[in-house]
Formats: sequence, C-alpha cells, structure tokens
Amino acid sequence: MTTTIRTQVGILGAGPAGLLLAHLLQKAGIDSVVIDGKSRDEIEGTVKAGIVESPAARVLAESGVSDRIYREGAKHDGIEFHVDGNAHRFDFQDLVQKSVYLYPQHEVLTDLIAARIRDGVPPLFGHLAESVQDAETTRPRIVGTTTEGEAFEISADVVVGADGSGSIARIPVCGSQRNGHYREYPFAWYGVLAEAPPSSDELIYSRSEQGFVLISTRDKNVQRMYFQCDPLLDASTVSDAEIWDTLQAGVSGTTLKQGPIIRKDVLRFRSFVAHELRKGRVFLMGDAAHTVPPTGAKGMNLAFSDVLWLNQALRSFFATGSEALMDAYPENALQRIWKAQHFSYWMTSMLHIAPDATEFDKLRSLGELASVTGSRSAQAYLAENYVGLDYGVGDWD
Amino acid sequence: MTTTIRTQVGILGAGPAGLLLAHLLQKAGIDSVVIDGKSRDEIEGTVKAGIVESPAARVLAESGVSDRIYREGAKHDGIEFHVDGNAHRFDFQDLVQKSVYLYPQHEVLTDLIAARIRDGVPPLFGHLAESVQDAETTRPRIVGTTTEGEAFEISADVVVGADGSGSIARIPVCGSQRNGHYREYPFAWYGVLAEAPPSSDELIYSRSEQGFVLISTRDKNVQRMYFQCDPLLDASTVSDAEIWDTLQAGVSGTTLKQGPIIRKDVLRFRSFVAHELRKGRVFLMGDAAHTVPPTGAKGMNLAFSDVLWLNQALRSFFATGSEALMDAYPENALQRIWKAQHFSYWMTSMLHIAPDATEFDKLRSLGELASVTGSRSAQAYLAENYVGLDYGVGDWD
Repeated sequence: MTTTIRTQVGILGAGPAGLLLAHLLQKAGIDSVVIDGKSRDEIEGTVKAGIVESPAARVLAESGVSDRIYREGAKHDGIEFHVDGNAHRFDFQDLVQKSVYLYPQHEVLTDLIAARIRDGVPPLFGHLAESVQDAETTRPRIVGTTTEGEAFEISADVVVGADGSGSIARIPVCGSQRNGHYREYPFAWYGVLAEAPPSSDELIYSRSEQGFVLISTRDKNVQRMYFQCDPLLDASTVSDAEIWDTLQAGVSGTTLKQGPIIRKDVLRFRSFVAHELRKGRVFLMGDAAHTVPPTGAKGMNLAFSDVLWLNQALRSFFATGSEALMDAYPENALQRIWKAQHFSYWMTSMLHIAPDATEFDKLRSLGELASVTGSRSAQAYLAENYVGLDYGVGDWD
Repeated sequence: MTTTIRTQVGILGAGPAGLLLAHLLQKAGIDSVVIDGKSRDEIEGTVKAGIVESPAARVLAESGVSDRIYREGAKHDGIEFHVDGNAHRFDFQDLVQKSVYLYPQHEVLTDLIAARIRDGVPPLFGHLAESVQDAETTRPRIVGTTTEGEAFEISADVVVGADGSGSIARIPVCGSQRNGHYREYPFAWYGVLAEAPPSSDELIYSRSEQGFVLISTRDKNVQRMYFQCDPLLDASTVSDAEIWDTLQAGVSGTTLKQGPIIRKDVLRFRSFVAHELRKGRVFLMGDAAHTVPPTGAKGMNLAFSDVLWLNQALRSFFATGSEALMDAYPENALQRIWKAQHFSYWMTSMLHIAPDATEFDKLRSLGELASVTGSRSAQAYLAENYVGLDYGVGDWD
C-alpha cells in the first residue's frame, strides 16, 4: 500500500537549499513538497557552524523567511589572518562595505522550517527517499519509505535533489553518485568544541609552521576551533593538552581562553562538482551538486545561489511552460559554483601546508600571503569573495 | 703570470644587474670592476625579450643610465587575457595609473654599457671568471682567465655574483651551484620569431584547451610568439604550418599576421631561489640568486630590486664600515623575491594547463580566471604586480 502525493515540485532534503527553494516557489504560487528522512528534532538539533554571507542573509530576511539573523546573529566586520604569528586584519567594512553573520546553520534551518509551518506546508520529516524515477518523463517520481515503514511516492512535474553530499538524486542525473569532478586534500580538520569564552571577536585564520588553525566561535559560552591534521587521525587519540598546545601555537599573539573540551572530531573534506546538474525534469542543487572545503565557509552560501537560479527557472516554467531557463540552469549555476570552488581551494591552499610541500612551496605560499596582506586590492578581492559576491539573479519576491 | 686588479667591489657578470650596480655605486664614489666572459658584441647582440616595469624604467632614467626607454620603448598601458576565445583587457592606466615598457633587454644592456664607458670605467669583457675565493675574509677574490688565455685576479673588499643562472659565485655562497629552493614545470615555451607586422598593440596572454599562448612583439617588423609545449620537444620537428595553427587557435578572436619564421626554440624554465644570498663578503643577486618562469616578465625587473638593496648596503658599508645593511640584504631582498616568485608561479599556473591536470583542475582554474577578470580588485592586484611594485628602497642618486 503506497501513499501517493501529487505536487508540482518534489524536493528531496529539508536542508537550507531545499527549504529555501520551497519558500521562494510558494511565494510565486507554486506547490512543492519537501521530504527528509530525518526528524525535525534531529535536523534542528544537529549543531553546525555557520558564516552567512551578506547576500545570503539578505535573501533570508527580504524573502520573508526571517530577519532573526540580523537581530540575533553576530555581525562580523572582518577576519584576521595570522601568518607565523603576525596578525593582519581584513576590514570588510572598509574594503567592501559589507559584513558576514555568524549564525549557525541549525538556526537557519529553524527559521526555514518555521516559515514552512507558518505557511501551512510543513516538510514531511521521517520520509526517506530511496530513488528518483522517470527523470526523463514529464512526471518524475520520488519513491521511498517513512520511518513507520510505509511506502510513499511523490509524483511531481519537477524533482529537485537537495539531498546533500550523499544525494540519491545524483543517480538519475549523473548515472552514479560518484560521477563528478573532484579534488582530494592530503589534510583534514581536527575540530573541537570547548566550553570557554571567546578568545577573539572575529575569526582567526592562522598559518604557521605546524599548518592551519582556525579560531571560531559558537556563542559566548562555546567555542569552535580547528587545526590541520592527518585525515586518518583517530580523534580520540589526541589529548586535551595537545589540542590546546596546537591551537595556541597557531595564534601565538593571542592567548586562548581554555575550558572543557566537549567534542572532538576529524572533518575530512574534498572539492566536488557533479558532472551534470540536470537530467530531464530532475535537478541538483546545494551539496547534492557540489561540495567545497570548509575554508572560506562557502557551503550553504553557495547553495543559495543554486536556489535562486532554480527558483527563477521553475517560476518561468510553471508560468509559461518554457523550459529555456531550466535549460540554462546548469550553466548559470556553474558560473558561481566554479568561482566558489576556486575561492575555497585558494583559501585552503594558501593557509594549509600539504604534508608533501617542498620548501619552495612553503616559501612561495608565504610570498603569496605577504602579497595578499600587503595589497589593498588583493585584500578587497579576498574580502568581496568572503562576504559573498552578489547573486546574479534577483526576482525572489 | 697573473694580472691582479684591486677594486672595492668585484662584480661577476655584465648583465643588467651587475652593470646597474656598478653605475649606482660609482655615483656614491665606490669603485667597482665588472667582468664578463663574453664580448661586448656578443652581449649587445643577443636578442632578448623585455618588458620593463614602471619602477625599473624609472631607476634607469632617474639614476642617469639613460632615458632612451621613455623615448624609444613602446609604452604598454595594458595586457589582454584571452580565455577560450573571450578577450579581457587589463587597463593598467585605469587600474593602477602606471604602464610597462616594451624595451628589449639587449637595449637596456646597450644603455648600461654606454653609461659605464661614458663614466670611464668600461666592463672588462672577455674575462671569464673561474672561481671566487676567500669569501669569508676581508679580501675576497675573483680568479679567471681572459679570452687571450691570460690569468687574472680581482682582489676586492666585496664580490658580487651577478653571473646569471649558471653562477659560479653560488659555489662559495651556497656550497654548490645547485643548492636552492626550486620548482620544475611540466611544460615549456615553444618560441618563434616571425618577420611580420604586429598582430596586437598589446601583449595577449591566452589560455585555451590547448594551453598557453603568448602573442608578444619585438618591433614593427619582427614578432615574438610562444605556445606551451613539452619540455622535451625538438624545436625543429614542428612545421611552420603547425606553429601558425597552434598560435592562431589560442587567439581565435584575433587574426594573426603571418610571415617567415626566422627562429624556433624551446624555452625550458623553472622557479629557483638560492639557499643563501650571502657568505661573508660575497653576495648574489639577479639570476644568480633566483630565476622565475617567464610568464609575467619578472626576471630583469626583480634583479633591479636586488641591486637597489645591495647598493644601499654597500654604500652604507663603505661610508661607515658598518655591516648592518649587508647583514640585512638577504632578508630585505627575499621579501620581494618571494612575492615575485609567487606572482610568476600564479601567472604560470593560471594560464597553462599541466599535462596531468584533472578536469577539476582545469575547471577550477577557469573559475579563477572568471573571478580575476570579473573583479576590479583582482584586476588591480594583478596589474600592480605586473607593472611592478614600488621598490622598498630609494637612495640611488
């Protein structure tokens, strides 16, 4: 016994991309159903980092999701680079007259879910998608099973895979989940959550002989910090004392405020862009379409660019029947995707030290950091990418 | 029977760096002797490319070498990037209010040699240095033989190795000619000289699926052009038709003016920085201290930075006996050296396609080119490096 749900747009994944798309489509009178295998509590309770770009914050506030980011998010007007102990601040307000917001991703999700509920179309939680069928027909389907074990099917005009880096929508679109352009990195991040006051008002990106360190913050009481490590490291084998020593060595000019470490994890990452973003009536966006290394914090922000392009394409399709903007979606979205891939790669390469780096590589990289921190133009180039390039597409109201 | 010449500064190499240093030192009343194994005709007759940075042109003119560069050099107010056929101009005057000068290096040498002769201290041509001795004494020596087979010795207070990438002065300074930080590239430049009118008023740096192409010019009648090739390619195996096809494919929007190809060569290159720039009273500068890949045209321009720092240090030493600025020379010079190494590496990496590049690498690199050409800040950052950062040291009069 299968429950069939009929809608215009079936969206896999109640993450930031899927929920924002549903919100924007509804504003244009387009019905959608968002499904996710996880429960609402699970989604809202998974603590995640979050630097929200200036244009991403604007979309959330101006499209009516919520302006809580402006009221409760921490506005950051700059970042610091520490290079072998020498601090350099990128003053975003001075350089590009914009800021970013420290506003964890689970808060964005809370806002987006609240908006769906407020609008009377809550996501279907506990609905695990198993496959996407009939991509190349006018009636693609999402097939799955609920947490209660009931079979369901979403029958739609368009299916959108916003189901993250393990996307199953990628199978009909790309032929396999693995079909994409990618780059592996020979390092990972060792991340800790510590119960301590913030050591810095702004994020500190550090590079020293030991490699990369990032001093970030969650709120007044909990800090999030990272250092470069071997991707195969077992997080549990590193003592608290070693962690503090490594973090402190990266920011010698700043005395870290210590406290109990309540979480330790090793975050592996890679760069990935799916070979295709569309097959017939099935589209990929967000992490289903691409992942970036975390340096530079582009993940969710880049997903919003996809959402805006796809929102424009679907509005045009449902209003006129024309597939022209749906056809253009991959090319439009990929322009920003590859810029963001480059920015994330650049920040990562410049601030980490690869285990096989030669002395030439290390010194050349320090030459780059000296060039970038010594040039107002280069600082502005970095800043305009960090705070977020304007989305090339409007029309979200 | 050995002829011994006594001087304050013995300089190996009558290249741009050695000659400019001799010129500047003389203005402060410091004697020097410049030697070179080659003849004057050989040096002035070796046709070489030449993009002279704005600050390098200023040093030549303002220090009294010659202002011919301003009268006879071709002022270039920009360069073009062609990316898969799409042209983008970097407008240097608009971006950084400076220009570069197309003025071949053999013309710079002609001016510098004329200045030495005018000042009554011509370089000693046909003096081949064989070794540098006694570096760690107060009386280092250059030992060699003239073209006529006569032994000679330069006995000096200071010896300067400005003897190019095969520097023998590197032996006492670094322990071996090979002791340095370096990077090899998996491609080279196939260079041609063609008797044809210029195809473009400004240099065109192109990147397409075939890799890198550079459309440069020598003068109204002879053009210098390059395309990326295998470092092991035998230049003679490529037909003229293949050459024109490859060059033309790189700049599809511009029709190249063809003519007889009068020279074909394969230029291999690498990045190199000597491990040490000083041992006792022996100093390295210019190509003896570092080489850069040709993309970005930093070779001679970077050498002039070394000259200015060393000129300052030697002036201070001979005026006061203090070695403080001699001690500081390596660190001072290396700051710009590593910036220039990075810039040359960046231009090279961004515009060439490595034979082992993945699709991710290629698309990421195109994302970078889109970011750079799409951002005024990034354009200005590239331009300020291309036209030449201000030298951090003055006092050359």
